[in-house]
Order: sequence, then structure tokens, then C-alpha cells
Amino acid sequence: MPQPRYDVVAIGNAIVDVIARADDALILSEGLTKGSMRLIDAAEAQRLYAAMGPAVEVSGGSAANTLAGMAALGHSCGFIGQVADDQLGQVFTHDLTALGVAYTTPPLAHGAPTARCLILVTPDGQRTMNTFLGASHLLEQRMIDEAMIANGAILYLEGYLWDPELSRAAMRRAIDVARAAGRQVAFTLSDAFIIDRHGDDFRALLNERLFDILFANEVEICALAQVDDCDAAIAAIAPLVPLLVVTRGEHGAIAVRDGVRTSVAAEPVATVVDTTGAGDLFAAGFLSGLVRGDTLDRCLISGAVCAGIIIAQIGPRAQSDLQTAVAARLG
Amino acid sequence: MPQPRYDVVAIGNAIVDVIARADDALILSEGLTKGSMRLIDAAEAQRLYAAMGPAVEVSGGSAANTLAGMAALGHSCGFIGQVADDQLGQVFTHDLTALGVAYTTPPLAHGAPTARCLILVTPDGQRTMNTFLGASHLLEQRMIDEAMIANGAILYLEGYLWDPELSRAAMRRAIDVARAAGRQVAFTLSDAFIIDRHGDDFRALLNERLFDILFANEVEICALAQVDDCDAAIAAIAPLVPLLVVTRGEHGAIAVRDGVRTSVAAEPVATVVDTTGAGDLFAAGFLSGLVRGDTLDRCLISGAVCAGIIIAQIGPRAQSDLQTAVAARLG
Repeated sequence: MPQPRYDVVAIGNAIVDVIARADDALILSEGLTKGSMRLIDAAEAQRLYAAMGPAVEVSGGSAANTLAGMAALGHSCGFIGQVADDQLGQVFTHDLTALGVAYTTPPLAHGAPTARCLILVTPDGQRTMNTFLGASHLLEQRMIDEAMIANGAILYLEGYLWDPELSRAAMRRAIDVARAAGRQVAFTLSDAFIIDRHGDDFRALLNERLFDILFANEVEICALAQVDDCDAAIAAIAPLVPLLVVTRGEHGAIAVRDGVRTSVAAEPVATVVDTTGAGDLFAAGFLSGLVRGDTLDRCLISGAVCAGIIIAQIGPRAQSDLQTAVAARLG
Repeated sequence: MPQPRYDVVAIGNAIVDVIARADDALILSEGLTKGSMRLIDAAEAQRLYAAMGPAVEVSGGSAANTLAGMAALGHSCGFIGQVADDQLGQVFTHDLTALGVAYTTPPLAHGAPTARCLILVTPDGQRTMNTFLGASHLLEQRMIDEAMIANGAILYLEGYLWDPELSRAAMRRAIDVARAAGRQVAFTLSDAFIIDRHGDDFRALLNERLFDILFANEVEICALAQVDDCDAAIAAIAPLVPLLVVTRGEHGAIAVRDGVRTSVAAEPVATVVDTTGAGDLFAAGFLSGLVRGDTLDRCLISGAVCAGIIIAQIGPRAQSDLQTAVAARLG
């Protein structure tokens, strides 16, 4: 196999986040589950937006956030995802390419507008996400740049894309392309509701040994393993994937490889401002270490540093220098 | 005269800010004057955007920022300004109306897109603005809601709108409407380049005694008075306006009424993150005090508190509670 041009190629939702501060009363009156993500249609997006306070717009999307973090950490990256030919699509495209990420998926000319995620951030820093997928869920298999995938050492996929039928087919094809090219496939479970709907599919993929790296949080790994206990869930899933990474919020993170567990504590954060992107940036820091050939404990610390930076600010794209912070922590 | 429904009605550019961190080298290589504002066309906006780093989008516009601050301080406000019927126009409209500001200017259906201001924030916190006016400079006189103006205790105008011919005519009409309704007219000089181009017009308006309140910074008041010394400039302009307010950055602010000068120091700020909106929010805090009937020293402190809050964060719309901060400082 030729040397890959990209450290990571990711496929994910192409979303602009619309982030507003909200009090707990709004979460309650809207009947939302704090900390979760739900999909909404255009009408609901319009209604909820009108009920929200003033917002800021920041590019988002789970895998795209991870890629933005990796690019900021100095890695060569490629992104595949569907925006529309509109102002928010231009914003998303700019913010990714300005970091040096290769992003060439043509915008959708007609149909749906660029996806947005209405995010309510409560005073405890917790984020509750309401995603209008728009153009993003119209990512077709023919839009997948197979040459780019074959050119990435790691293919990184987000579980969110399993939900729309079109993009699910595209993901399956992308996995085949990556494996045929001898590349690694990393997968993040994204959210418990995705596992509720597509857990059987994920378990089948794991049983086929199609994933090389799996990212999950505690809730997700339990949902995937269909058990209540996190340790039992890790024990059940770890044999199915060469490298399992489980984030545990304020309790740190665990990696399991070859039956060996490595764990680290969370990095100290003065004030949790907004947890949006915490898992995405953890993955960025972790993968960055992995690509550099670091030991797993250092990969985990690198992930924890990036997650710690992102939850101390508004939005999932780092406003400060990740590279310096990680280097300072790891020495 | 009936009791006005609005404490303040403002007419201003309807702009979404696109804010990116930049190093001094970019300011230099782009040939920009740090701290200034310049107007750019669509082609230059596209070119500069491509040269900028990842950004966040926040509603802006000088008078609109002031109004957003006043609304956050509990005042009833109305806004007049021109957006297009596009996604950035929806963002601008949402962010203002979500604060309770009455904003009913119909969006422009055809022609130019919603205005954006590409803002480069250097490590010293200074902002350098590049404004593509788009739809905003197409504010026509017929779009001015005269009933709203007659219903506002204070009409607040920004100098920026003097530059486009269409909106300049609309401003002149708005002043007539406000004066005929027995309302006060407040004016902010906006930027030295505006005074370079329209100083004669501003001096004529002052000589006609058409302004009741004038806001300026040190550079602007000197440009208006055509002298180099700030004290001399204040002495020259103060007799032409019942209330003159001059902000002096880290040196505080001065108000002159009936020949009496009142001055306050700047509020302490731990770290200047982004000076975008400092003058706008000073005006918000000051006018808020004035509407409440506060003494001038308290009005100035209220302005300084709001300015201090806005320069400690990214963007010109307050992410924390202005009302609590002002109340805590004034007791």
C-alpha cells in the first residue's frame, strides 16, 4: 500500500451549530432530555429557534469537530459531508478549509438547506441538541470520494450518519473502500438514540471485525452491550475491536487493547462553560496521539486535554491553541 | 405628546459579524489599519474570507449592538435596518427579536445579501473590521417606520449610515420625524473615516442644533472638531449639543452637559479578549442610565461596566447578564 496522504479522513454530518444560553425552565417546558441529541424537522427547527434566546453560530458536526481538532494539532485531514449551496454551507466549508482540511464534497444545489443544530446550553454547562439535518442526511454514496478514503491512514465515521438511509449506505461502502485499501476504520457511537435504532447493525459490524477503533461514552457502551454496568459493557465489547476507547466525563477515560485496560483521570477545568464537542475533541486528541505513535496513556491524556479545553469555551471548535496545550501537558 | 412606547428607537446597519482570530502578520500583509473599519465589496469580502481563519458568527451592527445591550438592561426598544431574505438575515432578525426588540423592517427580497463584517481580532484584543454592506446600505426612506420613531423617547442613529446615499436620506427624514414628535435625537460618530467624508454634514447638523446627545471617541471628536487636542475638541463641540459623551478607552469617559464636565475611569478588565462592540455597549449602558434618570456620573459608570463586559468576551452581544453587573456596580 502506498503511504497515505491523510492521517485521517472523516465522514460526518456537515452542520452549523446555533448555540444559545438557556435556563432549565426552557429545557423543561420544551420537554427536552438534557444532554441528549434529537432530530427535528424544518417546522420544529423554526418553532424552537423562535423560542430560543440570542445565539452564536459556530461550525459543528461531530466528526467534523474531531477533524478540526486534528488539523489544529497539525495533522493532514480530509472531510466528506453534505452541505447545501447556501450561506451556512459557506460558513461550514470556510471553517474547515481554513484549518487546512481537504473538503471537496460538492454542495447540494437544490432541495434542503445546510444542516443546523440548535443547542441549548444550561447554566451547568450541559448542552441539549436539536438537529435539523437538512442537506446533511442527503449524503449519497456517489458523493463519497473513494480516492480520498483510500488515501487516509484512518477512516473515521460517526454513528449519527447511520440514521438516514442514504448516508448509511454510503458509510457501508466507505468501510469497504477503506478495508480494501488496507486502512484502519474508526467509529464513534455518537448517541444512545442511534444505538437504540441501529445497535443490531453496529453489533453485526463488530462481529464481522470491521472496526479497528471504537469510541463510546459510558451510556453508549452500555447501550451497545445491552447491559447496565459500564465495566461489564467494556468487557463484552473489547474482544470485538482491536482498540476500544470509552470516555467517562469527569471520571476520565479508558482504553482497552489486547485485553489490557489503560485509564486516565479527566483534566481539571476551572469552569465548565459548554460541553458541546467534548467527546469529539477527546477523539481528536486521542487519535492525534495514536497517529504519532504515542503510548495509550499519553493518547488518553492528549484526548482529555483537548476535551478540557473545549468545555471551557463556547462551541465545539477550539478558540485557543490545542497543539501548545497538549505539548505543555505531555512534555 | 403621548408617552412613548419605546425608550429607544435605533436606525443602523443590520450586520452579522464574522469573527476570527488573526495574528499581526495577517493585518500587515493585508495592509489593514488595526482598530479601524473599512468598507469592502463582495469580491474583496470573498477574497478576505478565504484568507481568514475559522470564524464564529454573531449578530452585530453598531446601533443594533447598542439596542441589544439596552434590551438586555430591561428597556423597550425598536430597531430599523435592512437585511436580505437569507440565512444571515434570519440570524440577525432572530438575535434581536429574541431580546424583545421590536424589529419589523421587511427583508430585501432581491438584490444584495445580508451585510457581514469580517472582523480580525489580534492577540492584543484589538478588532479590525472589514464590512461588506450588502443589503444594509439599501435602506430606503420608505422603509423607515415613522410611527415607531414617533413612539420612541430617544432616536439613536449611527454615523455609518451617513455613507450610503439612500440611507443618508432616510436618516435625515428620521431626524425630522423625531423632532416633530418632540423626541430626542442621539447620534454616534461611528468612525473617523465617516467624519472624513461627512464631517461638514455633521457640523451643519450640530449647528442647526438637531442632535440632543452626541457619542464620540477621542479620535472621532478630534476629527469632528478638526483639532488635534481632545480637550480642545470637546470644548469646541460641547456648546453645539446639550449632552456630549466622549469615550477614551482605557482612560475612561467624559460627559459634558451645560458646560459641566463629568468624568469616570474605565472599569478594570482582567483580559481584553475582543474590543468589538466596546463603544456600542458603552452607549447602551450610558443611555440606560439616562432613561432611568440617573446622574451623569452613574450613567458613565453604567456605560463603562457594559463596555468592560463586552471586551472580556468574543463578539459584541453580551453572553452574561448586563443588568446584574450594572446593578452590582452601582448599588
